Amino acid sequence: MASLSGFPEHTPRERIVEQAVLDHLRSTFELHGFASVETRAVEPLEVLLRKGEIDKEVYAVRRLQGDDGAASAEAGLALHFDLTVPFARYVVENANSLDFPFRRYQVQKVWRGERPQQGRYREFTQADIDVVGRDVLPAQADVDVAQVMTEALGGLMDLVGSPEAHATLQVANRKVLEGFYLGLGLADPTAVMQVVDKLDKVSPEKIRVMLAEIGVADDAATQVLALAEIVTTDTSFVQQVEALGVEHPLLAEGLAELAHVVGSIVAPERVTVTADLRIARGLDYYTGTVFETRLSGFEQLGSICSGGRYEKLASDNRSTYPGVGISLGVSRLLAALLGDGVTASRSVPSAVLVAVADETERPAADAVARSLRSRGVPTEVAPTAAKFGKQIRHAERRGIPFVFFPGGAPTVKDIRSGDQVEVDPTSWLPPVEDLRPQVVAPSIPVPDLQEKTP
Amino acid sequence: MASLSGFPEHTPRERIVEQAVLDHLRSTFELHGFASVETRAVEPLEVLLRKGEIDKEVYAVRRLQGDDGAASAEAGLALHFDLTVPFARYVVENANSLDFPFRRYQVQKVWRGERPQQGRYREFTQADIDVVGRDVLPAQADVDVAQVMTEALGGLMDLVGSPEAHATLQVANRKVLEGFYLGLGLADPTAVMQVVDKLDKVSPEKIRVMLAEIGVADDAATQVLALAEIVTTDTSFVQQVEALGVEHPLLAEGLAELAHVVGSIVAPERVTVTADLRIARGLDYYTGTVFETRLSGFEQLGSICSGGRYEKLASDNRSTYPGVGISLGVSRLLAALLGDGVTASRSVPSAVLVAVADETERPAADAVARSLRSRGVPTEVAPTAAKFGKQIRHAERRGIPFVFFPGGAPTVKDIRSGDQVEVDPTSWLPPVEDLRPQVVAPSIPVPDLQEKTP
Repeated sequence: MASLSGFPEHTPRERIVEQAVLDHLRSTFELHGFASVETRAVEPLEVLLRKGEIDKEVYAVRRLQGDDGAASAEAGLALHFDLTVPFARYVVENANSLDFPFRRYQVQKVWRGERPQQGRYREFTQADIDVVGRDVLPAQADVDVAQVMTEALGGLMDLVGSPEAHATLQVANRKVLEGFYLGLGLADPTAVMQVVDKLDKVSPEKIRVMLAEIGVADDAATQVLALAEIVTTDTSFVQQVEALGVEHPLLAEGLAELAHVVGSIVAPERVTVTADLRIARGLDYYTGTVFETRLSGFEQLGSICSGGRYEKLASDNRSTYPGVGISLGVSRLLAALLGDGVTASRSVPSAVLVAVADETERPAADAVARSLRSRGVPTEVAPTAAKFGKQIRHAERRGIPFVFFPGGAPTVKDIRSGDQVEVDPTSWLPPVEDLRPQVVAPSIPVPDLQEKTP
Repeated sequence: MASLSGFPEHTPRERIVEQAVLDHLRSTFELHGFASVETRAVEPLEVLLRKGEIDKEVYAVRRLQGDDGAASAEAGLALHFDLTVPFARYVVENANSLDFPFRRYQVQKVWRGERPQQGRYREFTQADIDVVGRDVLPAQADVDVAQVMTEALGGLMDLVGSPEAHATLQVANRKVLEGFYLGLGLADPTAVMQVVDKLDKVSPEKIRVMLAEIGVADDAATQVLALAEIVTTDTSFVQQVEALGVEHPLLAEGLAELAHVVGSIVAPERVTVTADLRIARGLDYYTGTVFETRLSGFEQLGSICSGGRYEKLASDNRSTYPGVGISLGVSRLLAALLGDGVTASRSVPSAVLVAVADETERPAADAVARSLRSRGVPTEVAPTAAKFGKQIRHAERRGIPFVFFPGGAPTVKDIRSGDQVEVDPTSWLPPVEDLRPQVVAPSIPVPDLQEKTP
């Protein structure tokens, strides 16, 4: 049976890398106090289609021999295509029991009927963080989500291992762009933004032609392109924008907000934060801060982590719920890592295989395994009392580093070095770095210690 | 908007209880060396329908404006209704890269179009463990999965907290029942098993009538019912069965297998393992050992954890893959726990809220938070520099136990006791039990230490 295109599945070893990524994200989000939320996989179709543009990509769901009439709530269900729409519904449904500002993370699969291609799937995992307020949300929330995601990215770069691995969080603000365009006297700033948004695929000359097509005069186009060229790693972008000589209250407001975000984030190693005025996210519903993220060495992935501020994530008949959030494309990132040769040091959690000399000795082997597990050591017992050579190969094939031989004088063999030593079965522990499978990046040259010997 | 019946969603506090359950399961499975596998949510319809009986319950999936023709692989997709069918496909697809015997756990959502009712959902989470061999699988694997699941159940009972919480893993063997019926001269042992399987819903008198209807003579029915009454916590069931005077080679084989399983498991506290010859699982494809599990106090849930041995989990043109597995109904168990009042000590991961006296002091508050997080303490910073009373209420509402006041002489207030003490911000840590939200069972009476004072 052929596997289904666009629905990736992982080997156990690849899954260990995925678990390491997911564990790191969860740990980072929770260290910052974000609470976990999961929503159901399905939403009413009309909720999903409200966003427009995306109807083609939705997977509809129906009971195969359902007795639900057309009037039933289940008649028009579909799989969610992101985690923002379900979360907006969740916030409204649970508004009475949530404490605002509400900080949540959500890591789940989503489904889109897009044509599968490199790094684009029909089923994939997203990791979202959002802060949502009731009626008001302090500007500080924009800093908070950016800070959390830069730390998440920093840890992921460490996981990748490659010393060149580097992420850049690009921050912009819709008010800067919109205010600048309004200050230039352009009538339809959204249309301009949608053109500028194509700058990563299209040359500036082509953009100038496209701007002319929507009625932007050539000198205004020059200014639009000059703004889009501004990229700084500090707040000096403010002076650069001001030097262009355009003025508008919305522009001033946006510059102050963006300077606050870029100036407040304390980025970890291997992550750079930039104010990058190319970033428009023109097609989305953002109203202030916007984020994108590029990984050096993985430029072909595009932005693996995007988001921004929306003044109205959701609303009910009493309140509106402004929010700010960032979504990380876990499956895309993982595909890039695995494609780059990142793997796990073994295919099973077991650090130790307890050998069985004879089926009558199995209870003794089980007792050793119980004792090791009670000390937190993932342990399995040989499935049969085969020849020891075969039991050692059982461990080798799976990458289990230690084989424990119970008996009169218990010994442990490190199957990597071949060293075998007598141990006390009630206290022996493997080195802490061998307790769990490690994520291994092949691009790190293994240090050759011999060469360093003078 | 009304929530969808059968698609439960949790509050952040309930989700923390769910995470504790899932973390405990993962930790137990990995301590025993089981590797994690996830499969895609969809399977070809014909794969799902092969099992029969279930077609009515399947959710079909299709692209809303798909261009897939009828010949396309996606034309007939549906959401998986369990984790066994997808795993069987996964084993065949990946047979060349898996090491057998292969031990995997799989914790995922599944979907069934059943009528929603108490503890029965349309979207729910299952946790499965299986051991699969290529062509052969040692009988020891039956013991292994039972041992892992009894330890998982033991930990769950501890999580529930109620001192009366108790799980019973009921083990039987299809060969015992089938061999016994064959030894009685009954022509259709499967039909008899399907009747006996109803014993937990129907009285023995009614069973006797139903047996007569399928041609079982009254004295044979007496024997069938006598076998079904045998329940022992040790291997003494063997003598009780032999005392019934029925003989058949398959019966002898089944008794030896069952005695091995029941005699080998070392059950943790709060879990009892029984040989229980009522357990038939008549409608399933099991061929040897079968398992069910009851929770005392939650009898209405039925079996929350079931499985068994199947001589042919899957096959390809070279091999068959025998397996043994157990599946735990996480959502059902969770619903029972939450319904019983189990909750989390707070609604957020944060152990500490760092107060902000004034927005100009925010960088100092951020520095304290960074320091705490670097020591593993989940920490959030107050969203605004509101009055301290309001900031303390922010913590109280979420159950955050500590508020940290930075400044000249930093202090920490335990908002449960009201105690406030000066601390060193570079080294202070909350008590380890406050680091993470705790699962709280209301049925545990809080020990009144004062009363014990003489």
